[in-house]
Amino acid sequence: MELIEATYIATRVDRPAEELAENIAREQSLESPRELISEAIAERFLGRVLAVEAKDADRHVLRIGYPAELASGQIGQLFHLLYGNVSFYPRVRLVELRLPESLLAAWPGPLGGLAGIRQALGVADRALLMTVLKPRGSSPEVLADLARRFALGGGDLIKDDQNLVETDLPTFRKRVTYCSQAIDNAQNKTGKATLYLPHVAGSGDHLERQLETVARLGLPGVVLCPWVMGLETAASAARRHGLMWLAHPAAAGTLTESTDRGINAAVLLGTLVRAAGADISIFPGSGGRISSGERDTGAATARALTAPLGSMRASLPCAGGGKTLELAAQTAAEQGPDRAIVVGGDLLTRGAGIERATRETIAQLAALATDHRS
Amino acid sequence: MELIEATYIATRVDRPAEELAENIAREQSLESPRELISEAIAERFLGRVLAVEAKDADRHVLRIGYPAELASGQIGQLFHLLYGNVSFYPRVRLVELRLPESLLAAWPGPLGGLAGIRQALGVADRALLMTVLKPRGSSPEVLADLARRFALGGGDLIKDDQNLVETDLPTFRKRVTYCSQAIDNAQNKTGKATLYLPHVAGSGDHLERQLETVARLGLPGVVLCPWVMGLETAASAARRHGLMWLAHPAAAGTLTESTDRGINAAVLLGTLVRAAGADISIFPGSGGRISSGERDTGAATARALTAPLGSMRASLPCAGGGKTLELAAQTAAEQGPDRAIVVGGDLLTRGAGIERATRETIAQLAALATDHRS
Repeated sequence: MELIEATYIATRVDRPAEELAENIAREQSLESPRELISEAIAERFLGRVLAVEAKDADRHVLRIGYPAELASGQIGQLFHLLYGNVSFYPRVRLVELRLPESLLAAWPGPLGGLAGIRQALGVADRALLMTVLKPRGSSPEVLADLARRFALGGGDLIKDDQNLVETDLPTFRKRVTYCSQAIDNAQNKTGKATLYLPHVAGSGDHLERQLETVARLGLPGVVLCPWVMGLETAASAARRHGLMWLAHPAAAGTLTESTDRGINAAVLLGTLVRAAGADISIFPGSGGRISSGERDTGAATARALTAPLGSMRASLPCAGGGKTLELAAQTAAEQGPDRAIVVGGDLLTRGAGIERATRETIAQLAALATDHRS
Repeated sequence: MELIEATYIATRVDRPAEELAENIAREQSLESPRELISEAIAERFLGRVLAVEAKDADRHVLRIGYPAELASGQIGQLFHLLYGNVSFYPRVRLVELRLPESLLAAWPGPLGGLAGIRQALGVADRALLMTVLKPRGSSPEVLADLARRFALGGGDLIKDDQNLVETDLPTFRKRVTYCSQAIDNAQNKTGKATLYLPHVAGSGDHLERQLETVARLGLPGVVLCPWVMGLETAASAARRHGLMWLAHPAAAGTLTESTDRGINAAVLLGTLVRAAGADISIFPGSGGRISSGERDTGAATARALTAPLGSMRASLPCAGGGKTLELAAQTAAEQGPDRAIVVGGDLLTRGAGIERATRETIAQLAALATDHRS
């Protein structure tokens, strides 16, 4: 039987580690007393303990196999299966995930991903520069002007700040249309593509109408917050409209940054987000305002987004969180070309200098790629 | 200006507490360098520090006011505003929330809630007994039989286990129809109502079709996992179909159970879930398999679900997590009558004895209410 293999680390176990592992396997799969579970049901659905090992004086490694059918072919249900009720267990953290081929084959993965974005941009081999439209409250004209300058400088990706949220559709439409047209005009001048991803939030009809607006404008995708709106909700919303999507990590920090609970960033913002089909995943990386401190998992997350995973395309890894332009080149130098680097505030504050600063940073990234090739 | 007041506790601050408070206020509202923010935008949208106090040697209390408009009238955006990027900050926990009247007035709150459920059940003043249909893999006939026995015993609420997830609609329809009919038949015999809430998961069309099925069967509501599918996604899905909903806390444990990060259960599974309109909120309470350990916040969460909140109805608090029948009466005795007590496995394993055990437990709960009145 094909299993979803989940590895947890349990710190200072409150019962024998083997017992805890059995409890988790049962809790997450059938949540029933053993005597309620028939042999046939156990065989088909019960989670099973694959290994229990002491890691050090404080910690045990628990490897559990869940029958693939438990995910019900739904990425939301997979997340639920891996870390639903066990999130309430004392000091149990999900650190590794292996998905079986059957499950991976059922999901399409990223629509464009790293390769599709490179193709749309016509940028083969350097790190990509992304900026952010903000702050909320700025007029559409002001935001469109920021977008225009960045595009004139040859910038690659523009995302809306995830705080840009409109209550009504006409305001959303106006802003997104202005920004889109400003970028089109700039592209016509430079001959270089810049991809614009508006932020879309909310639910129901309001969510649908925003996505329709983006698709009708011919824009390539959207920014979604899967840990606010739900991972599967985000994935299916984008897919329904044929849009790429950038997964913003808002609200995921308690999961990734807790020491002895939660889920490793490489699993959460790497494997799961890619399996959900996110074309770009932002995660905290080394440096910048929001960093993951001593436990910098940027490299592991980027690997999870790009290493072979069924036949899924790679997602574009994006080391985010308040980077300066200077850190952009440094991050690209350290981490290689298959990254998008987000620079928001430090670029936007340059006003009339945005275009030039963008051009110079892109040139630095291109030079790094040349170094990398040689 | 009306403010959303959020109180955070910062443990072992990595910068002066006042500076950290200013950083959070800016991060969560506009996420921009101060020089990008005009006076007009700051006045209307910038979060503001209301108070900073040392709590003890390790901890500071940071009280921050966010202009109500930042929530954009969306419960998802409110959650995002309160704990989006700040979830990545070191050791910052949201412990209290005050919502302004304007925001509360914009949201309908629970459709039925505690009062509506009491009315539908015809049970005025005792604690309510809930059971759970499981395990996954059981035939519709077996699950319907469990439901029938519980209903014949006069049980109040039946929820599907949140692990009951069907990939295809016909299987879902068959199971839910069987259970619904079994309960109808039992009700016709006893004259006592039993409310059945199927679990609904997934996204897009599949989610809609399941909700339609539930609504067409005339069932009162559904079980949703808002921390899997998104809080606002859950709320709007139920509301679209005129259904009540039970908020299951799956995947919320890292937020509520972390010591120096995350969000207090009373805010997350209390105020926010109620503001989202959940009619019932399950949260870990004292005793049972899943407990919140030393920091038992059951009482505070129940208060948040029932104390005055704008003109919203109270949600029904539900101390969940692997309780035995014996603990049911004990929990009700300790916590008073305005609770639903979930007993799953311990009741289901009684087979032919389910009806009698249910009747006896209901009688105990009724006796407690009589004691309580006298």
